[in-house]
Amino acid sequence: MGPHPAVAAIRLAVRRVLHDVVTEHTRHTEQAGHAEFAEAGAGGRRSALPERPDTPLVLVACSGGADSMALASALAFESRKLPVRAGGITVDHNLQPGSGLRADEVVARLAEMRLDPVEAVAVRVGRDGGPEAAARDARYAALDAAAERHGAAAVLLGHTRDDQAETVLLGLARGSGIRSLSGMAAASGPAGRYRRPFLQLDRQTARKACLVQSIPVWDDPHNIDPAYTRSRLRHEGLPALEKALGKGVVEALARTAQLSRDDADALDTWAAEAARSVRDDDGRLECAKLSVLPPAVRRRVLRRAVIDAGSPAGSLFARHIEEVDRLITGWRGQGAINLPGRVEVRRQGGRLVIRQS
Amino acid sequence: MGPHPAVAAIRLAVRRVLHDVVTEHTRHTEQAGHAEFAEAGAGGRRSALPERPDTPLVLVACSGGADSMALASALAFESRKLPVRAGGITVDHNLQPGSGLRADEVVARLAEMRLDPVEAVAVRVGRDGGPEAAARDARYAALDAAAERHGAAAVLLGHTRDDQAETVLLGLARGSGIRSLSGMAAASGPAGRYRRPFLQLDRQTARKACLVQSIPVWDDPHNIDPAYTRSRLRHEGLPALEKALGKGVVEALARTAQLSRDDADALDTWAAEAARSVRDDDGRLECAKLSVLPPAVRRRVLRRAVIDAGSPAGSLFARHIEEVDRLITGWRGQGAINLPGRVEVRRQGGRLVIRQS
Repeated sequence: MGPHPAVAAIRLAVRRVLHDVVTEHTRHTEQAGHAEFAEAGAGGRRSALPERPDTPLVLVACSGGADSMALASALAFESRKLPVRAGGITVDHNLQPGSGLRADEVVARLAEMRLDPVEAVAVRVGRDGGPEAAARDARYAALDAAAERHGAAAVLLGHTRDDQAETVLLGLARGSGIRSLSGMAAASGPAGRYRRPFLQLDRQTARKACLVQSIPVWDDPHNIDPAYTRSRLRHEGLPALEKALGKGVVEALARTAQLSRDDADALDTWAAEAARSVRDDDGRLECAKLSVLPPAVRRRVLRRAVIDAGSPAGSLFARHIEEVDRLITGWRGQGAINLPGRVEVRRQGGRLVIRQS
Repeated sequence: MGPHPAVAAIRLAVRRVLHDVVTEHTRHTEQAGHAEFAEAGAGGRRSALPERPDTPLVLVACSGGADSMALASALAFESRKLPVRAGGITVDHNLQPGSGLRADEVVARLAEMRLDPVEAVAVRVGRDGGPEAAARDARYAALDAAAERHGAAAVLLGHTRDDQAETVLLGLARGSGIRSLSGMAAASGPAGRYRRPFLQLDRQTARKACLVQSIPVWDDPHNIDPAYTRSRLRHEGLPALEKALGKGVVEALARTAQLSRDDADALDTWAAEAARSVRDDDGRLECAKLSVLPPAVRRRVLRRAVIDAGSPAGSLFARHIEEVDRLITGWRGQGAINLPGRVEVRRQGGRLVIRQS
């Protein structure tokens, strides 16, 4: 008899990602070998082929909650069958009394699964961008440092399809276009270090997999605290949307994320090419050439130019770019436009002059 | 003392659209004049320049609800100051007892506002696509016929920013990509006949404008009937989302619609160009050329090709196109793919063969 369907599902999801990691690792070390070989040939030196590289290390980032405990269990199981080493990291955010004790418990559980290395990392959460963003920034900084320290090839994160749906809705609330609808990527961070094997798996499956494997899980009280936007979305917003629109909403949101990401990537590619072709010999943007671009492409070119001039991306809203766009599409001699980061855009002799004061 | 801010807002919104209609009408008749003149010159015939065209007719589509009654009142006011004639149409859907009587009342109110012509049109609502889609189809068919009959240059619709937000969420629930997130256009239909002056105005403003002008309004019981998806969204889904995400949600959704529409237009343009460049001499799609397109562009090319072969757009889902895409990106000798509308796609000699059986 095979494993419970939920356990089979989490293992399959992790196996696919581990397979990718192993393939990339092999290709990477082969290329390194070829490069060394070619260099030796070109330089006339001879060196032995590189030693067989050691197996890549994959870490799981584990809060002790159901999603990441399920992920850890699947990593422990699948890593035994593949040329990978598996370890785990838990981040102690120091935001609740007893959080250090809980981190120790998570470490003990990961060690019981025979993950190695296993480590608890304590961080200090700042205040920038609100409590959720500050905690996230601190967490990723700690995970980045741990990945470097251990030389990890990948760090697995337990985000599920439900998390993805919530992220899309949070992006929707910003109203800043399709990039903010594209949610979390299956692979992100430096060299695609962060992998999200459960992005197409629902939260219920992860929870069920813990239950049937008798893995104790910890429910973060933040997840049900209505002071947090994501928590309100999870417990009130999304259920109400499902009630109005039907049960497929989470899946539809996750699919929207993928489609939006591909669309945003394609448009960014186009805008990067267009940005080169609409400049004069001095590298200034020519309004006549900008005016014939599709609005979606033109606004991306403008946004990129303004950011390159020093305007912080996070403070730059659609209405700012629309105002700059009117220098091209609604020109009636208007004056300079002031943007966040003391960046100024004016139209002069049919060119855009963008500078930071 | 000027009008109440709500009344000023609805009038300004309508004035802008009327201004566009007048400008387009003038340009159109001038072009017609030039064309006739040019033709006369080319053919050696001489004809008198066309007579000064009559003023364009603008109709308001009015249900008797607050949005469209506000729209009618603003049209009646603004049309007196511009070279346009203003009329009104109300559609009797025959779905509720007494609907004929109510249509007569709406006609009487529009006539009181001195709109002319004013007409009630009765329709029979079918069943295709569910009650909301069927009612919409019948309504637009009646409005199209009325516009043709009266030679109207434009038909104004009372959709507000709130309606737009609901439409985006309905599109989101389909999960079929950014085109379905782009909501309603400010101008749509044959030659941009349908105009939506209130698309950036909130429902509350329209309601307030009726109140302060003592215009009686009719509340359609369908709008609060939880049997209708849109009604559930309006009274439960959106309020819950606003509670979780903050008051700016409606505005953010409406902005998402505009940005998504521009993005979808740009990508469609790209895909149309790409579709020409990836064909061999016999017009068949070449897999090697398709494979270097960005996924978002490639999938649009594939979707268009499949629709052109006879697959009905409404039955064609993202997963169908993904399956076709794997003939290019994940080729391992798989067989023909069967799509809705008896369309079959197979890969043969590095080309896609798409045909309807």
